[in-house]
Amino acid sequence: MASVTDIPDIVIGRLPLYLRALNQLVQQGQTITSSHELGHQLGISSAQIRKDLSHFGEFGKQGTGYQISHLQTQLKQILQVNREWPMIVVGAGDLGRALAHYGGFVERGFRVVGVFDNDVQKIGTGSGDLKVRDIRELIDFLHHNNVRIAMLAVPGNVAQQVCDTLVNAGVRAILNYAPITLIVPENVHVQYIDPVMHLQRMTYYLD
Amino acid sequence: MASVTDIPDIVIGRLPLYLRALNQLVQQGQTITSSHELGHQLGISSAQIRKDLSHFGEFGKQGTGYQISHLQTQLKQILQVNREWPMIVVGAGDLGRALAHYGGFVERGFRVVGVFDNDVQKIGTGSGDLKVRDIRELIDFLHHNNVRIAMLAVPGNVAQQVCDTLVNAGVRAILNYAPITLIVPENVHVQYIDPVMHLQRMTYYLD
Repeated sequence: MASVTDIPDIVIGRLPLYLRALNQLVQQGQTITSSHELGHQLGISSAQIRKDLSHFGEFGKQGTGYQISHLQTQLKQILQVNREWPMIVVGAGDLGRALAHYGGFVERGFRVVGVFDNDVQKIGTGSGDLKVRDIRELIDFLHHNNVRIAMLAVPGNVAQQVCDTLVNAGVRAILNYAPITLIVPENVHVQYIDPVMHLQRMTYYLD
Repeated sequence: MASVTDIPDIVIGRLPLYLRALNQLVQQGQTITSSHELGHQLGISSAQIRKDLSHFGEFGKQGTGYQISHLQTQLKQILQVNREWPMIVVGAGDLGRALAHYGGFVERGFRVVGVFDNDVQKIGTGSGDLKVRDIRELIDFLHHNNVRIAMLAVPGNVAQQVCDTLVNAGVRAILNYAPITLIVPENVHVQYIDPVMHLQRMTYYLD
């Protein structure tokens, strides 16, 4: 198996897509699939899929396809989601609360363990782990709970400042919903979700 | 200027990123920028940016950089967001309601004009344009309001069925938040937002 640094990031980026497609096939009752079937479902060539997976070893036998459960297990291990990652949400507006309550995290390797805001109207609302905490408790909380992942659902004009605080407190992966590009050290990973960018990409093609 | 079909989709996909970066610079008070500055901010090479923009004409003079307002106007025109697109949200759960109330759409070319659900507990809640409507009114509403864009925030197991209804009623661009791959005709565009896929892409790199 190749070491981490050998694998192009674009290949890593496709693995979650494969894992999701496999989950979908399992829900449909399948136990075996092929690179052709996966490729058809995802709009990716079967050759690309085989090449991507070959970075990590041998997953299928020529002519018999992939055993889905085995491939799922392997992909989860490679992506390190064969465990549960605690994460926090910063920003308890509509979006932050939707993220805090999203049911799709736990079954795929993640759990929201804390929600933070600086608005006294919001602090203390909600219940259990998802009771909104004071942003001033953030650093202590991250240290005590060994949290490395944060979702950022704050306004754009404070996102960089909150990001800096998170990074200083040990966060190494940030899913940023604020519509700005964050500046982070090299050892911190940022992914962006901005619905408008996806919409603008589609309007180009509309008559 | 090249015709639509000449431009690779991957180039189109970067234009919203450029537009967003320009908005960010304007908010910081700048009026001029360069491909180097944009590239540095976005982690894209300046040569790539110049090449992407060259598909659409001449935007900067050698050595003087880009006039931000001019480039913004041109990019908005190319992406067809120099107008306001009406769109609907299907699914009035936490995420659907967060999308319906998201303040970032209007200033960037989009407006939510309707929210739909099939749950009688949700229908009629909310107010104004964002009062949740009965999914059975969907087809009539789309025709009367000439809506071509929908955001899909329904559970995965009904997403394909809702998608088919949308497509039959004339929707040509779908932003899908359900964690499944949709099957659509060639003339329909789908973009996917799945936070777990972004998170899984980052956990690969965590120690």
